[in-house]
This record gives sequence, C-alpha cells and structure tokens, in this order.
Amino acid sequence: MEKLKETLSRIEGADYALGKKAQERLDNLTKPPGSLGRLEEFAQRIVEITKNEEPQFINKVIFVMAGDHGVVEEGISAFPQEVTPQMVYNFIRGGAGINVLAKHIGAQVIVVDMGVAKKIKNQKSKIKNFIDKKIGYGTGNIVKGPAMTREEAIKSIEIGIDVFGAEFKKGIDIVGTGDMGIGNTTPSSAVVAAITGERAENVTGRGTGIDARALTRKIEVIKRALSLNKPDAKNPLDVLSKVGGFEIGGLVGVILAAASQRTPVVIDGFISGAAALLAFSLEPKVKDYMFAAHCSAERGHKVILNHIGLEPILDLKLRLGEGTGAALGINIIEAGIKILTRMATFQDAGVSQKEPAA
Amino acid sequence: MEKLKETLSRIEGADYALGKKAQERLDNLTKPPGSLGRLEEFAQRIVEITKNEEPQFINKVIFVMAGDHGVVEEGISAFPQEVTPQMVYNFIRGGAGINVLAKHIGAQVIVVDMGVAKKIKNQKSKIKNFIDKKIGYGTGNIVKGPAMTREEAIKSIEIGIDVFGAEFKKGIDIVGTGDMGIGNTTPSSAVVAAITGERAENVTGRGTGIDARALTRKIEVIKRALSLNKPDAKNPLDVLSKVGGFEIGGLVGVILAAASQRTPVVIDGFISGAAALLAFSLEPKVKDYMFAAHCSAERGHKVILNHIGLEPILDLKLRLGEGTGAALGINIIEAGIKILTRMATFQDAGVSQKEPAA
Repeated sequence: MEKLKETLSRIEGADYALGKKAQERLDNLTKPPGSLGRLEEFAQRIVEITKNEEPQFINKVIFVMAGDHGVVEEGISAFPQEVTPQMVYNFIRGGAGINVLAKHIGAQVIVVDMGVAKKIKNQKSKIKNFIDKKIGYGTGNIVKGPAMTREEAIKSIEIGIDVFGAEFKKGIDIVGTGDMGIGNTTPSSAVVAAITGERAENVTGRGTGIDARALTRKIEVIKRALSLNKPDAKNPLDVLSKVGGFEIGGLVGVILAAASQRTPVVIDGFISGAAALLAFSLEPKVKDYMFAAHCSAERGHKVILNHIGLEPILDLKLRLGEGTGAALGINIIEAGIKILTRMATFQDAGVSQKEPAA
Repeated sequence: MEKLKETLSRIEGADYALGKKAQERLDNLTKPPGSLGRLEEFAQRIVEITKNEEPQFINKVIFVMAGDHGVVEEGISAFPQEVTPQMVYNFIRGGAGINVLAKHIGAQVIVVDMGVAKKIKNQKSKIKNFIDKKIGYGTGNIVKGPAMTREEAIKSIEIGIDVFGAEFKKGIDIVGTGDMGIGNTTPSSAVVAAITGERAENVTGRGTGIDARALTRKIEVIKRALSLNKPDAKNPLDVLSKVGGFEIGGLVGVILAAASQRTPVVIDGFISGAAALLAFSLEPKVKDYMFAAHCSAERGHKVILNHIGLEPILDLKLRLGEGTGAALGINIIEAGIKILTRMATFQDAGVSQKEPAA
C-alpha cells in the first residue's frame, strides 16, 4: 500500500503555462493558425505533460497485461479460457495484432502475466519481452464471491507501478496500455457499472462476439456479481477487488506510475478504459496524462470516455484490445509533436502572415 | 483530349472476388472475426484495388499541386496571393506541414506548379521534388468570366495524368492528393455547388480563417460566379473550366490516372474533395480506388463525401490541405495491410478458435 500511496502523492497537474507557449509556437508555423486541428492539441498536451518544449518519442512502450477470470465458467465469452495463454505465446513470438501494429509505429511490446490460469513456460527467463508477475491462476468467479482479496488488488496495482518503473529507468517517452484475458469484458463492465452507477445493460457488449442469448446471460451475470459483492462506488480498490481482474489492476498501476513520472499514457479500448476509470477515481489528476486512443465498438466504452471527459483520437470500430488502438493513437500524437518541432516558422520560410483586413 | 479519353476508358471496377478472399484470410488471423474493424475494410479494399493478395506500400507519393486564382482580388482569402509561391518554396525546402507528415509516414512529396501567379525559380531544374507544369499565371477572376478555357481545363487534367504516369513508372503503391493555392476554397466551393446542386451557403466555409463579414462576401462571390458562368452540372469539364482551378484540374488527372493503373488514391480535404467530385462525375468507377483521408473542418466537405459515398478515415478537425490529412490516412491504411499480411493465423499460432456454443 505504501508504494501505491507514494505514487498517488507524486501525481501533479500538467503545466498549462508551457502548453500556452507551445500554442504560440504552433501559431507561428507556416500554416493558418489552428489549421492542424487536434494535432496541435496533442502537441500542446505533450508539452504540458512532459514539461519538454521539444518533445520526442524515442522510446514507445505498450504494456500488454494478461489475466484470467473465474467468471468464464458462466459461459460469458465466445472463446475458451485456453486462448489466454495461447495468445500470450503469440505475443511473445510476435504474431498477434499488437505485435504488427507496434512494429508499424516503432514501439516495443512488453507482455506481463498478471494472473493467467496456466503456467507460461519461459525457460531460463530468456524471453525479453515477457515478465512473469502472476498473482494467481485466474480470479475468483464474481457471481460466487469477490474476484480477489483487497491485498491482491493492491498488489496488482503495485506490480503495474513496478513494471512501468523498471522500463522507465531504461527510457520511456510514451506508454500504451493493452490487455489480454478471455472473459475480461465482463469484469470490465462490472467495474464501469460500479464506478459510474450506469445500468449493466448500458455498459455490456458482445466482447469477442457472443450472440444475443449469451449477451442476456452476460448482463445477468454482471447484475448478480454486483448485487452479491456490493462494490463501494467511492472506493476504487473495493471495486477492483470485488469485480475486477489482475490485468485490470496491473493497468491501473501502469497509468498511475506514468502520470507520476510525467509520461503520457495512451488508453486503448474498453478493458484499458475500465482501468483508466479506476485510476481516475483514485486520483483525478491522472486525466491530464491520458489520451483516449479510440472509440471502441464495445458497448459501454463511451460511458467511460464521458465519465473521465476524454475525446477519442480515432474511431475505426476496433474491438480487439491488446493495445492495438493505443498503437495507432500513439502514432497520431507523434505526428502532432513532429509538427510542433519540425515545421518552419513564417520567419524561417519567408512566408507572409495572415492579412489583418480579411 | 485523347489522353483523357484513353485514361477514362482504362478505368475498370475493383476485384470484389479477391476482396472476399482477403476477408477469409482476415477471419483466420488470431483475433475475433471483424475485431479490427475498419483496418480490415482497408486491407480488403487494397486487395480489391491492386489485385495483389499480399500488398505492400513501398513507394508512397503525395502530389501537392499548386495554382493561383484570379478571384482573390475580390478579398475572399485571409492570406495574400504571394503566399502561394512562398509556400511552394517552403515545400521544396521541406519546412511545411506536408513535408513533416510525409516524412513521418515514409512518403515522398512531389510539388507541381500548375499555375502559380509568379515564376518559381528552379535553376538548372536541379530540384528533384518540383515539377514545372505552369499553364498560366493564375486563373481568371470567376466573377468576371470563366476561370480558364475548355482547352486549359483538359490540359490541366492531362498534366495530372502525365505527372502521375512519370512517377508510376518509377513505382507507386499508394498516392495522396494535396493542394496549395491562396483562395482555392472559393473555386472548390463553386465546383461543389455546381456539381451537387447544393446552395453556396452550405458548401462555403472560412478557408484559412476569414471573419464573418468576409464569409458573407465569399458566398456572394460564389453565387455571382455561378450565375455569370452557368456551369453545366452534367459536364465536369465545363464546371472545371468555368469555376475551377489549375491545381484542381491537375488533381482530377492524378485521381483518374491512379484509378486507371489500379493504384489506391487517398483524397485529402476540401480542395482535393472538389477534384474527387469532378473525377467521380467523369467516371463513377473511380470511387472504388478512392479513400477519404479525413473529414475536414471546412464547411461543405461532408457534402462531397456524401455525394460520392465515402466514409472518412480520420476526424481530427484538420483544415490545412497540402495533403496533410492524406498522409495520416495512408498510414492507417498501411496498418490495415500489415494486419492482413503479417499476423499469425490460428493454425500458425496454435490458438483455439471461437466456440460454436457461446
């Protein structure tokens, strides 16, 4: 708990004065003022976050946190639980969607086993992009009891803080969040319903592709989990422990740690969004450090974005998770900072400015 | 006229059967079917367009076509006309927004003088990324007469065809359209109003940033230009010659030539959109080859997208032109083809597929 408390205490607001200075520079570049729209907003925010007037994204890291969920025995997912470890191996070997998109944007993928229900074989710890931080072999079934203990919830967040910290020492300029865990839209919907007070129907979607009957069952499961566990909306640790997941907790830790180190953090889709909601509930100032990569096709994602007050960068109907949207979002934000730092000014280029008369 | 006719005759529809095959492959990759949303759509379309089942974007080219407009004497722009040649030099030197974004995505910028009102000095033709194809020193003022003759309109399109053709011989996998021309939202709005029949008020915006009074004047100018010149909505060449621009004609040529060579073409914002509208009116099959990079902040852009039936990739409130939105759009489409060609299949990765029961 000490580590979490200390991290929370180190989060301060962004430097809006420096952001204004960045906007002045943007207005002096060879383009009509404001004509690069949200790219300018992103550049300004990166300066506010990093306190660096000439930011660069040299090291981009996407953390893919994996965990399993006891609630899968209720038949709420289209895929079997064995897919979680299978996909972890796929991430390690570089064959998954996030590997392709991370490579496309020049980012590194780090996979963390937060609580996969099977042992991930990593003989002699030779695999560099994999970290074993397993808290347990999946969470408890939330219709029968809490997902995890309060201690495990704190531990999951503190692991996220540690994992970020270890990479931060090597250099991180921007972070993306990613997740893997069969069944994890169910705890995510439960977290969103618990924190925002929204009805389960409005925050529950088809995940990896369940049919209408399974969706009805999934909504029932979430309602039962909430009425059995009674998570306290005002207490994010209580919500995480009662209806969350190990990988969700790990992402909360990554988000808080990034904010505490003035590092921008790009939130992927629905599961990452649930983690962002918990982080925001623990410390509202983290919002200054967050970018919403995209608007997910998963129902309920908009509820998260509205609650925190984030405007998504992309809307490409993605619903894969893994950090795939975050990768694309990072690339657009990077375009913004390159505009800020690499374009010529009116003076540099000998270009006439706007006429006062017109 | 022969060259234009021949190009039009060579445009055939996309290969939808091959697109279906691509979707089958996408459905077999290690992700829930359809979960990468529009990235999958883009990959499928690139296969349909190129007839290549393993497409790659090795050579990406953005053509920035520049021209001036006699109508600027009516006070419809926030910037003076001298900015057009100044910006051409800025493009050549690499200091403009499009240079920064093209570099970000690994694309080449080719600047074409279609009709800048000043001579662009290119001593000994040493500058590789600049092509002098000047038709005239700006168009005629459209409130006093036609922008250009019918012959010049055909010539502008055929220059676009030639410029594309010369680069295509060196290798082009995807093309972006870009424009530069102080005052060119005015002829673009006139073109859009003429082709779609929409009222001038609904297709006229603030361009580089004029105030409310200048906007009223701009709308009046467009109405006068339309009522004086009476462009024939059914005749795109008549519309281009009476109220268009040299750079708009050049872009029409690039779009048609790209389609005739089964090359995807990413349409930037409002001015490129007006060119796309003319190309679409000349040959509706070009739609199969077009991607709308983004939804511009310029009023009237949505009218273009709706008329052709294009769904924009990005919505970042851009209104700079130059091909800046096209650059970002190309990058997202490229992410889609990398998903198609680089991800592991369920079989490759030993990942279990969706359960039929759930």
